[in-house]
Amino acid sequence: MEEVSGAAPSTDPRQRYDRGLDRSNEQIRLEEDVLSRVSASFMNCPDPRLQEVMLALVQHIHSFIREVRLTEAEWNQAIQFLTATGHITDEHRQEFILLSDVLGASMQTVAVNNEAYQGATEATVFGPFFTDSAPRIELGEDMSGGANGQPCWVEGTVCDTNGNAVPGARIDVWEADEDGFYDTQYTDGRVAGRAYLHTDDDGAFYFWGLTPTPYPIPYDGPVGKLLDAVGRSPIRPAHLHFMASAPGLRTLVTHIFDANDPQLSIGDAVFGVKDSLIRPFENQPADSPTPDGRDVGGRQWARTRFDMVLAPEGA
Amino acid sequence: MEEVSGAAPSTDPRQRYDRGLDRSNEQIRLEEDVLSRVSASFMNCPDPRLQEVMLALVQHIHSFIREVRLTEAEWNQAIQFLTATGHITDEHRQEFILLSDVLGASMQTVAVNNEAYQGATEATVFGPFFTDSAPRIELGEDMSGGANGQPCWVEGTVCDTNGNAVPGARIDVWEADEDGFYDTQYTDGRVAGRAYLHTDDDGAFYFWGLTPTPYPIPYDGPVGKLLDAVGRSPIRPAHLHFMASAPGLRTLVTHIFDANDPQLSIGDAVFGVKDSLIRPFENQPADSPTPDGRDVGGRQWARTRFDMVLAPEGA
Repeated sequence: MEEVSGAAPSTDPRQRYDRGLDRSNEQIRLEEDVLSRVSASFMNCPDPRLQEVMLALVQHIHSFIREVRLTEAEWNQAIQFLTATGHITDEHRQEFILLSDVLGASMQTVAVNNEAYQGATEATVFGPFFTDSAPRIELGEDMSGGANGQPCWVEGTVCDTNGNAVPGARIDVWEADEDGFYDTQYTDGRVAGRAYLHTDDDGAFYFWGLTPTPYPIPYDGPVGKLLDAVGRSPIRPAHLHFMASAPGLRTLVTHIFDANDPQLSIGDAVFGVKDSLIRPFENQPADSPTPDGRDVGGRQWARTRFDMVLAPEGA
Repeated sequence: MEEVSGAAPSTDPRQRYDRGLDRSNEQIRLEEDVLSRVSASFMNCPDPRLQEVMLALVQHIHSFIREVRLTEAEWNQAIQFLTATGHITDEHRQEFILLSDVLGASMQTVAVNNEAYQGATEATVFGPFFTDSAPRIELGEDMSGGANGQPCWVEGTVCDTNGNAVPGARIDVWEADEDGFYDTQYTDGRVAGRAYLHTDDDGAFYFWGLTPTPYPIPYDGPVGKLLDAVGRSPIRPAHLHFMASAPGLRTLVTHIFDANDPQLSIGDAVFGVKDSLIRPFENQPADSPTPDGRDVGGRQWARTRFDMVLAPEGA
């Protein structure tokens, strides 16, 4: 509990599990014996990495149960919660990723795997809404696929940490519509608000998308009930997802956030915001000329810029 | 890792997450910052117990991810594993309980909630095969419901820790057939190998069941794949499940194991064996007289005895 409570961590594990109660040495020995036997069961694991992961996993699960003195009713609630999480998950909805996201496990995994490297762009949470079904678009085309929202011109470059442009980098982009829904949440199966494209010879890219808006993560399932029970909001600040990849470079999974979004100062249900990823989305007056001459029907539109720097592979 | 490795535990959390690599202070600060923000998100939780449980849970999840330096591919494997575990779970199969069982989490929860109290009978793992659909039987009746196996006469008493008989205690019993299957694993929906009955005025009970045999937990799903990957056996020693309850006494969930079963010295996939729960199952020659005069068709049969002592409620 070092990072959480103000109390000094106990160095004696017996004290940590005793919580001031008069728990007998026999009881402590019995609980330690359960973990010892479980740990020993992994001693013939043929894969050293799997063994390492499983030993750490059971050590933390058992410590958790002992520290909080998990009741049998709570254990049963956990089983029911996981079951419900599994049952709502299908090819369109990934409630386990949502769960990982709202517990910050996704962002911690991102942190562990994307150590800062020189000026490389920071990564953030992948989220549950990426799919393999995005269409390819050419530079300057519209990735919204007819989804509702204000048109937004997005441009930028991809380079490596030596400042060299990366031609032909693949850029996947995906986002919610102005009502806060990704296409995977539509009931009619249409693909919208997602595409991939490639940078040009100068490492540049540009496309039309939608100005992102804040939205709640899906909260009609077990994860939403959990957030409600703990008094947390399901809202995420407005953002546009990017994944950039090129041979020899570390794939970057990230978003950009709209600097004008008041939700940024309120919070993010999945802890994805990083200062370096906040970008101005500049609103343009109706009838102002667009960068490529596109007629946006006399509406207001916005523009933003995102220059990405990719770390070397393995960095 | 105190209980697992022979190495002395590190008292400095920074060392624990550094694993001898030259990880920068900036990286360590970033990882700690993720957990701090996640922990802070639970500060408005209206339920202090839920807050305590969630804070401990996220602390252990984040420590696990940081200690093993969980890769994004491994995180993805974990999401896929949980998804598959959810999808195989239905009203007849509870793969999340199996998962909890094979990780020893079930037995640790049993240990935490059933502290030794005077001479009270020890508890063990509940397992995934209990159902609410068991028929009531009278004393001396057969709970096998036509399931295959050797007839076994089971008798015993229920008393409290002062040695007073408990009349009218409810006893639920359930077990696998001689092929290792519970009725919930049958495809025809029939109920067999389970029943409940009540102790008589002297706290005694007796019924016909089946001599238990070792069997594998269901291993055709994600949990079976996990056991296979880590080099573990899915086999459980032969056992007969009991749940005993009576007003004012702590409900006892336990099994008895057959002292003759060689699997006892090999291991138990779910860590449920306790020495105090091993009982002789005495084989009786074919045509030997049965306790109640029942004709068992000239076959061999067995008999065993299980006297249960229930702790006071809240002990």
